[in-house]
Amino acid sequence: MAGLLVKIFVWFLESRIFGPVLVYFLKKNNLIQKLVSNAEIGEPPVFDPSHPFEELNEQEVIEIDPNLSVPEKVQKAVNAITPPVEELVDGTKPSFRRWTIMDYSRAYSSGVLTPLKVAERFIAAVEESSARPLPMDFFINCNFEDILRQAKESKLRYERGEPISALDGVPVAVKDEIDCSPYPTTGGTKWLHKFRTCQGDACCVMRLRSCGAILVGKTNMHELGAGTSGINPHYGTARNPYDSKRIAGGSSSGSAAVVSAGLCPVALGVDGGGSVRMPAALCGVVGLKPTFGRVPHEGVLPLNWTVGMVGILAGTIEDAFIVYAAMSGQPVPHGPTLPLPKEYYPLLKSTTPISGIRLAKYGKWFDDCSDEIKTRCSHALYQLRKQYGWETLEVTIPEIEVMRLAHYTTIASECHTSLSSYLEKLDVAELGWDARVALGVYGSFSSKDYIKAQRIRNRQMQFHRKIFAKADVIVSPTIGVTAYEIFDDARETGELDYINGAALVRYSIAGNFLGLPTITIPVGYDKLGLPIGLQFIGKPWSEPTLIHIAHAMQALCISECRKPEVFYDLLKED
Amino acid sequence: MAGLLVKIFVWFLESRIFGPVLVYFLKKNNLIQKLVSNAEIGEPPVFDPSHPFEELNEQEVIEIDPNLSVPEKVQKAVNAITPPVEELVDGTKPSFRRWTIMDYSRAYSSGVLTPLKVAERFIAAVEESSARPLPMDFFINCNFEDILRQAKESKLRYERGEPISALDGVPVAVKDEIDCSPYPTTGGTKWLHKFRTCQGDACCVMRLRSCGAILVGKTNMHELGAGTSGINPHYGTARNPYDSKRIAGGSSSGSAAVVSAGLCPVALGVDGGGSVRMPAALCGVVGLKPTFGRVPHEGVLPLNWTVGMVGILAGTIEDAFIVYAAMSGQPVPHGPTLPLPKEYYPLLKSTTPISGIRLAKYGKWFDDCSDEIKTRCSHALYQLRKQYGWETLEVTIPEIEVMRLAHYTTIASECHTSLSSYLEKLDVAELGWDARVALGVYGSFSSKDYIKAQRIRNRQMQFHRKIFAKADVIVSPTIGVTAYEIFDDARETGELDYINGAALVRYSIAGNFLGLPTITIPVGYDKLGLPIGLQFIGKPWSEPTLIHIAHAMQALCISECRKPEVFYDLLKED
Repeated sequence: MAGLLVKIFVWFLESRIFGPVLVYFLKKNNLIQKLVSNAEIGEPPVFDPSHPFEELNEQEVIEIDPNLSVPEKVQKAVNAITPPVEELVDGTKPSFRRWTIMDYSRAYSSGVLTPLKVAERFIAAVEESSARPLPMDFFINCNFEDILRQAKESKLRYERGEPISALDGVPVAVKDEIDCSPYPTTGGTKWLHKFRTCQGDACCVMRLRSCGAILVGKTNMHELGAGTSGINPHYGTARNPYDSKRIAGGSSSGSAAVVSAGLCPVALGVDGGGSVRMPAALCGVVGLKPTFGRVPHEGVLPLNWTVGMVGILAGTIEDAFIVYAAMSGQPVPHGPTLPLPKEYYPLLKSTTPISGIRLAKYGKWFDDCSDEIKTRCSHALYQLRKQYGWETLEVTIPEIEVMRLAHYTTIASECHTSLSSYLEKLDVAELGWDARVALGVYGSFSSKDYIKAQRIRNRQMQFHRKIFAKADVIVSPTIGVTAYEIFDDARETGELDYINGAALVRYSIAGNFLGLPTITIPVGYDKLGLPIGLQFIGKPWSEPTLIHIAHAMQALCISECRKPEVFYDLLKED
Repeated sequence: MAGLLVKIFVWFLESRIFGPVLVYFLKKNNLIQKLVSNAEIGEPPVFDPSHPFEELNEQEVIEIDPNLSVPEKVQKAVNAITPPVEELVDGTKPSFRRWTIMDYSRAYSSGVLTPLKVAERFIAAVEESSARPLPMDFFINCNFEDILRQAKESKLRYERGEPISALDGVPVAVKDEIDCSPYPTTGGTKWLHKFRTCQGDACCVMRLRSCGAILVGKTNMHELGAGTSGINPHYGTARNPYDSKRIAGGSSSGSAAVVSAGLCPVALGVDGGGSVRMPAALCGVVGLKPTFGRVPHEGVLPLNWTVGMVGILAGTIEDAFIVYAAMSGQPVPHGPTLPLPKEYYPLLKSTTPISGIRLAKYGKWFDDCSDEIKTRCSHALYQLRKQYGWETLEVTIPEIEVMRLAHYTTIASECHTSLSSYLEKLDVAELGWDARVALGVYGSFSSKDYIKAQRIRNRQMQFHRKIFAKADVIVSPTIGVTAYEIFDDARETGELDYINGAALVRYSIAGNFLGLPTITIPVGYDKLGLPIGLQFIGKPWSEPTLIHIAHAMQALCISECRKPEVFYDLLKED
């Protein structure tokens, strides 16, 4: 449903008389009443997916002193990385690969290029991308002057032989849901920043800035993160670099697209229901959503409180790893130094292969995707078994659909609560049509619905705990369909496409609702050349092992990496 | 409002058409919309009042190894108690005092009395109390055979010279909200036990049983804990031993009344919104509500998940202390012995007086009670300053009324969610009239209301943290009015008395909503001879200091202790 139909739907939904009836039937059809509101659940509610820190007995994990400076943490991560894959397992060279943080760092250090030169190329690329017949609309805000200023400072540091870290001069884009000076934080809307002023960098952005990274602007996103397509009626729709007629996916659409198109080696997103992993998979890049609480959320729009996490979109797992090292760990409190909980310690691990990984696979769920995705993801799993001798265990994850509905009830209720005081003062016409549909439903949940959803959360945590007692990770496709086309009438109104929406979000929920760390890795393409992602879901706080596994997967797939239709080579030799 | 008016009110409330309108205006009049639903609150929600354990730097605190047996813990507590007050500060003897656990223990050990004799007297007393013109209706269930069986076993242990602990043979009553074999757990209803079968002792009851305590039955309570009067249309209304025309208060009405009337030195209650402290104060006994999470809740009716705590009603603070030592500490998990969090360690402290206590008092709130309560409580505070040189600090606790409404929103939503699957199967006529009113309102909250209430919880926690940075406890009256009369028409329908209800609950909320430990101590009587209580609210996990302060208060008031109109002397000499 798109265009006029959406408008008519909104009219009914917002009507005082038809609205509640329509919502009632929507929820009934979606089985929310049956599976959430009226479900009999024995477990008490668990409201917060924070997991107590557990020593996981992981191999070769390095605990990073939380009192180290951020650049020192980054250096630890750089030291832990095995040299980037220049040669493939079979001895050949990959036909295409994106430039990495270390490529930038080496180019600057060797004097081949300066950060200023790269910034100029970046600006030219953004201008070109916006001027295309199908404009890419990567950014909501991009202040060229501010970029050049940062680049000049970085250039001076390299000239003095004093770069701050491997991130110095590296362009990093930030989803417009995260505060970053000098930009307003719109959340993809035309109004949110009028009510909530950006007070400076979010904690995670501040950490990257303190490493010398160049913050190159605020990326496009689905309005309020309330959709999976990334179609935004206010700022245009970030398009997929592999096929600009198609969606980049949402809600971190712009962040995935800029990394895919080569504009930045890494970008930040926020993942409340797959919002980092879905666009990453659709755009053929790596997406990492850390354990709930691993990255501080100060300065991130509070669109929810119990499911969202800042995530990283990157061209390679090594780059995601470096940025993870820079951003993770709660701020060390001032005052008397207590023995800090382990959550404060970023954990790293060298990327040298390890053995004996046990991969849990729920076949029925794994296969609930397009044939091409199924085939490619199954093959990737086969490659892991064959190459590393890892083991696949068949498991059952009960009540996945119940979990999805409970997660929806949760994120919807929290988003509505968070925005409620603004919405009262807002002219509804300032909202996009599909956001109006979302908010119409979001406000309809009772406290019983919400608390029941939290009881389901507890139940699912127990199901997953059982699986993790015998497996190191759960493996699944990241998305059930590859990028689909953006229809003209959807560009104005957004779309209500529950079939594609459900297929996109199908594998995302456990990461958010249970607070588990999750990574997507590109593993190939469908017949149309559209990227396919494989997802690994880890135990709480198991990022080191998870990254390690993803790294091993990447090594087997990098030979197949294809150049997108829209690509900018910022490090090319003149 | 009572009698027919309540019935008419219920008819409107349960009507599909008038009900929602009525609830809307009720909430509006109570300012719930203004102060909770539509309040602008910056703080993120805190759903769980569990406080991370903090070393409080308390003087002379003894950490009890969680691996000790329960009787060993009880012995530690007995060792820590200074000899009970036989003489008063001024050298005289108190004219009346209730028998304590140690009195029972000594009577049994010396052979003056046997547990069987006491059990027989107990049974005779219960029979007498039920046969009075105004029946006391202390118990919902009381199995004389089971009591005699336990008493015989205890008697044998004493005859063998092998009592298990100081609690051996001591009668302990249990609120009918806590599982205790061989009784059903009715929650004060005629139906809940039909849906939820009692599977054996709750963890806290099991601990007392393992000490040899005689579990003497299930005490009366307000239906579902949903009221402050203790009026129960199904099981009669537990009456106040100081004046049997008056309420014992709720919801742990029977537990307070049996201790007051001398039937047990201690009884268990559950405190979700003052439900232990209010009846304790009304009946002139001690009430202790520990820190949230201090006592395991396995086997307690889950009428809510984030505000309730098992509490102790006792004749003296020493007895509350012994039972606290027996019940507190989470069960030590099986499996590999990890370093246990400090929450597992019961904390004790000798009752020798300490110096330098800082008492925070919010004058405007403190004085918002009847003149006699204000005068008596102010005098008690003066006595503390004079006798021990303790200091009173004037503080402001902002937004107390907002906190009360947020707490109500929380407990109502959780209770409704917990019971919802039963309520669907229930003939509404099985519910009492006032419970029908309560549940009618309980089910009306949205997820936004609930989450907003949790944001208010966070805000209030911060307010209280600031006060506790400069004070050891907050002191206030426990209740705003003394026990009021039970009117005939209220006995059938309950009553909707929002003025007395508000005055009773006024000082209770922080203990529940913020998870703080709280104690009420009887400090005197009004002109009608009705008891008055003083409340101390402590920092999280500060039970040792809190008990200590209460003990010091008790020493100054025990001379004024009066014998209730209804009193049974189970240890009298033949």
